[in-house]
Amino acid sequence: MKPAMSNMKQTDPDRLQTLLQRRQRLMGNAYRLFYEQPVHIVSGKGVWLYDSDGTKYLDVYNNVPHVGHCHPQVVEAICKQAHTLNTHTRYLHELVLEYAERLTNRFPDGLDIAMFACTGTEANELALRLARAKTGASGMIVTDNAYHGNSWAIAQITTTYETSEKRAENIVTVPTPDSFRGLYADEDQAADKYAAHLQTAIETLAQRGLRPAAFIVDTIFSNEGLPKVPEGYLAKAVAIVRKAGGLFIADEVQPGFGRLGTDFWGFASQGVKPDIATMGKPMGNGYPISAVVTSAPVIDAFHKHSHYFNTFGGSPVACAAALAVLDVIEQQDLQAKALETGNYLTEGLKDLATNNTLIGDIRGSGLFIGIDLVRDQTSREPATAETGKAVNRLRQLGVLIGSTGQYDNILKIRPPMVFSKSNAELLLEKLGTALNETRSANDRL
Amino acid sequence: MKPAMSNMKQTDPDRLQTLLQRRQRLMGNAYRLFYEQPVHIVSGKGVWLYDSDGTKYLDVYNNVPHVGHCHPQVVEAICKQAHTLNTHTRYLHELVLEYAERLTNRFPDGLDIAMFACTGTEANELALRLARAKTGASGMIVTDNAYHGNSWAIAQITTTYETSEKRAENIVTVPTPDSFRGLYADEDQAADKYAAHLQTAIETLAQRGLRPAAFIVDTIFSNEGLPKVPEGYLAKAVAIVRKAGGLFIADEVQPGFGRLGTDFWGFASQGVKPDIATMGKPMGNGYPISAVVTSAPVIDAFHKHSHYFNTFGGSPVACAAALAVLDVIEQQDLQAKALETGNYLTEGLKDLATNNTLIGDIRGSGLFIGIDLVRDQTSREPATAETGKAVNRLRQLGVLIGSTGQYDNILKIRPPMVFSKSNAELLLEKLGTALNETRSANDRL
Repeated sequence: MKPAMSNMKQTDPDRLQTLLQRRQRLMGNAYRLFYEQPVHIVSGKGVWLYDSDGTKYLDVYNNVPHVGHCHPQVVEAICKQAHTLNTHTRYLHELVLEYAERLTNRFPDGLDIAMFACTGTEANELALRLARAKTGASGMIVTDNAYHGNSWAIAQITTTYETSEKRAENIVTVPTPDSFRGLYADEDQAADKYAAHLQTAIETLAQRGLRPAAFIVDTIFSNEGLPKVPEGYLAKAVAIVRKAGGLFIADEVQPGFGRLGTDFWGFASQGVKPDIATMGKPMGNGYPISAVVTSAPVIDAFHKHSHYFNTFGGSPVACAAALAVLDVIEQQDLQAKALETGNYLTEGLKDLATNNTLIGDIRGSGLFIGIDLVRDQTSREPATAETGKAVNRLRQLGVLIGSTGQYDNILKIRPPMVFSKSNAELLLEKLGTALNETRSANDRL
Repeated sequence: MKPAMSNMKQTDPDRLQTLLQRRQRLMGNAYRLFYEQPVHIVSGKGVWLYDSDGTKYLDVYNNVPHVGHCHPQVVEAICKQAHTLNTHTRYLHELVLEYAERLTNRFPDGLDIAMFACTGTEANELALRLARAKTGASGMIVTDNAYHGNSWAIAQITTTYETSEKRAENIVTVPTPDSFRGLYADEDQAADKYAAHLQTAIETLAQRGLRPAAFIVDTIFSNEGLPKVPEGYLAKAVAIVRKAGGLFIADEVQPGFGRLGTDFWGFASQGVKPDIATMGKPMGNGYPISAVVTSAPVIDAFHKHSHYFNTFGGSPVACAAALAVLDVIEQQDLQAKALETGNYLTEGLKDLATNNTLIGDIRGSGLFIGIDLVRDQTSREPATAETGKAVNRLRQLGVLIGSTGQYDNILKIRPPMVFSKSNAELLLEKLGTALNETRSANDRL
């Protein structure tokens, strides 16, 4: 690293500009940065990130460092194994077996086999290939505001982003389940309405001469804005898909590993068992590892004609990192803590809402919370611009947060699982300031 | 790790059986293991791998540990950065810029932008999406014995494996360039014959109403068996594709990073400049990192309607590992050493061939060498079964090697780049033994 660069102060706009120009020259235009004034992070610890200026930020966004940035137990496991051996799954190694055992033990009976890749995209790719092989069908049903990854086939089912890539005819969408506004605001009828949409999707496929291979959802509908879905919604939807011969793929990349507090997996919180579950981001606390968990019949159908190899997937170092993450989750009881801290934070947010009309709804579970910002409490008009302002103001106030949802009006709280009550209090304080300022600015308009 | 397991002797068939059964139960049937008697590797250093029994193996196969298993400089870089920070490219970080600069400096002018992913599959996925966006076309031209990865779209262009997944109509194949047998054994006409196949492929696409988006090849045709391609072959082929509006994607996952000795990249050894280059395996010496290198116009065409984010791609730890790999390559002059050791090994192999009629041909460059085994020197009938025997016998003799090619009759020599002359001598000795035994066994038939 060049000394001039590493001493760069982020507050110096010329130096920031130099860094941004260098980035655009070397990495091109297709990447995005967070925040109007991008953050130049140089170190991290627990829930804290530090920029080149020495400024400390509370990380309320990143779920990849699941047990905290640079957790010493995970770092130690990575270093120890990287010093010893890092190969692949075409040799025998015990760590991958130990991890597969620990991981599948976390699943209901029948979901007892794990296969490994490096990213959530790759896990969803494998799930898609498994589902197609098992069903002999190609149809994919997804919600219309989903994120599942960045490869060609997965970008096709990632409906949240605009793309010039024409969606193939095997992909059909169902409306985003939004319990707060739109089609489904009447909760009594919502589950049946959703189910009817699944039926329509299957009929649309049939009109194209296709059958469903799978219905895939993020089981807390992260990108859809963490809607409160009515009880039985997912079970009803899955039953319809299964009746038509399709599988249910639970994308646990965001909700998984205890984040929801109530359950270790999102599908469990919905009371439905998937045919295939995929997981990624938090597994290795930042070390690239992802997995597919499924049953022998699903794998055997694929294996009739294909096999699978992923060079880095399930490597000894990846598994050492992932085992350490499971250890920390268990030793520190992070699932229970996520529930407790999440409830505490939610109560604080409700208090905040009594004084701030921008807050239309507070949703989510454990340490995965969405704050739906509205321009008007009655019309529930999404406060999209205000959300952007709040996100950027919070960054100035030392809190890194993001936004989500089909109107991008939902503040997304998804911190490392070691997030404490005092972290929650700091967030509430800064959030109060940012939202009050945003509201005041609106009032002045 | 359970003590009983970690003390397991590989020579104990009961314990090996237990491990195999445990693996099948936990990881299913879709994975393959190397060798009739799988190896249970527990540690590695340089070109050496050690099994649970303490047996030492010369690693002649693995290109992922490019600068040697557990190279201390790379491990140290990983540990240091993992202790400090591991986030993503939506914050500014200098390591990704420093690496992008070092990497693109290794490319010809115009190939000056790097984008990052985790695996070769993901790099090829991104390349495919870029090529489709740039050309507005969908046709993909590949050889008929290619390996490019494991996702849905990349498995479609991975023609070496049987699969039940019907190849989409946008994919057309050209015959594997084999200079040693078959269609192209007459070298004088080979380049024109190959070019004609490309023309036919483009016409096939046209008949389907499609245009070529890209022609993608591993630039040393690794999986095709490292054929000696005639001078100008690739240039002629690429010219035809470009005339039809398609791009040329150089898959450098195997040949890249100096392995060929003569050049840092395979495309340079073929005297042709790609529109997009992809790379993976050796980049991080086992830490998952891959990249696409291309030009601004290609990225900008994609960026008109899409953006790209890969959670772990280009992370600070990945870039620290990759920078350390480049440092070691440069400090130890590994490209020049690959050429020198590769030439020394090739001479030794030629000597071996004078005494062993199984050796039909010796091909490749630097530390990427193929030994084409034949049943008969005149007919050049591929010695497929004998190759399998030799691979398994070498494993017993303490040498880990693999095979490749459309007839799976080519011993594939692709060791870590720190492979020395004395390593080469050991390989020659053991190879001599294994091939003599294999030949003798054949003679007795």
